[in-house]
Amino acid sequence: MKKPDEIPTRERLLTSGAFLFAEKGFNGTSVRKVCEHANTSLNMVHHYFGSKAGLLDAIVEQFSSGVFLVPIRLLDKPLRSKDDFLSRIEMLFEATLDAYIEHRSVLLVVIREQADPKALPEFMSRFTQFLNQAKKMGYVREELHTDMVMGFLLDRIYSQVQLAPWIKRNYGTDLLGDPEYKKKWCEANIDVFVNGILS
Amino acid sequence: MKKPDEIPTRERLLTSGAFLFAEKGFNGTSVRKVCEHANTSLNMVHHYFGSKAGLLDAIVEQFSSGVFLVPIRLLDKPLRSKDDFLSRIEMLFEATLDAYIEHRSVLLVVIREQADPKALPEFMSRFTQFLNQAKKMGYVREELHTDMVMGFLLDRIYSQVQLAPWIKRNYGTDLLGDPEYKKKWCEANIDVFVNGILS
Repeated sequence: MKKPDEIPTRERLLTSGAFLFAEKGFNGTSVRKVCEHANTSLNMVHHYFGSKAGLLDAIVEQFSSGVFLVPIRLLDKPLRSKDDFLSRIEMLFEATLDAYIEHRSVLLVVIREQADPKALPEFMSRFTQFLNQAKKMGYVREELHTDMVMGFLLDRIYSQVQLAPWIKRNYGTDLLGDPEYKKKWCEANIDVFVNGILS
Repeated sequence: MKKPDEIPTRERLLTSGAFLFAEKGFNGTSVRKVCEHANTSLNMVHHYFGSKAGLLDAIVEQFSSGVFLVPIRLLDKPLRSKDDFLSRIEMLFEATLDAYIEHRSVLLVVIREQADPKALPEFMSRFTQFLNQAKKMGYVREELHTDMVMGFLLDRIYSQVQLAPWIKRNYGTDLLGDPEYKKKWCEANIDVFVNGILS
């Protein structure tokens, strides 16, 4: 892990901005606070992002590229077989979960500020196409509404990562900090989804 | 529908409080603003709820009773048959969706303030028991991790209701305002879940 002072200023501002906007909201956070938290001088937000709104845009953009790049790549290649389909669903679920966990602050900012990450609709539509392709190949039930169930896995991940502290407090399970539990949780959820869609 | 001045003061304060806390957060909302919005005199929050924190507690409590009363009742009675199990899953999904839609402002407050609605853990544990009972009766696959998949439907509902304005803006579908779409969406999601858990 890099020491804080080895991380480039722009990156530190993105991290601090995401952390503070997630905690206090965009309106509740001053440029001064972001710079203090990132340990930079006061004009650095202006220098790198033009304004506080520019910083927010860059944070949301970071979510797009950081979270959806790997999953989109998994959906992009043609399916070779049913096994290929199943293992891609599995990798998709795990890769998306890991990305949401890694970028959890940014996720909270995106929700709180009702931002529109550019890559999300693209990811959604590719997921639907992916399921349609699997249907054409006979892996998925004919009567499945691929466009309506595509978000099932994503919503599951999204809710659990968003609500993680609440869940830990109320149930003691820790998806973010307990790799053993995370593994079992992934398997159990993929199992239901896959059984739910297969022909 | 009642006219605003026919609704009791306490109820108007709960509605206005939920609306404003959802929009601006608990810290970003003054008692004065709540009273103005509810069209009451300034001491009414104090009179009914003791303080702004008391109003928040009452709003969260309202979420507990308003949202989980019907679903808990659906889980409570012993299962008679597989058909009974299937129709209860269906009713559970639709009743919970309707309750989340009706109490959407309160839901947003609960998330934003990281509150702990008392009835939610009870609902969760009854849902698990319900699936365990179905497993005992042979309706549900033996290898299903009932405790880990119990939240699948809830997370789906929760995410879609929370993100409804964003989804409408980006995809044009309207779960809150389009009954035809809502019906199809419910059917498609119940179909996947049920196929995913049945033996």
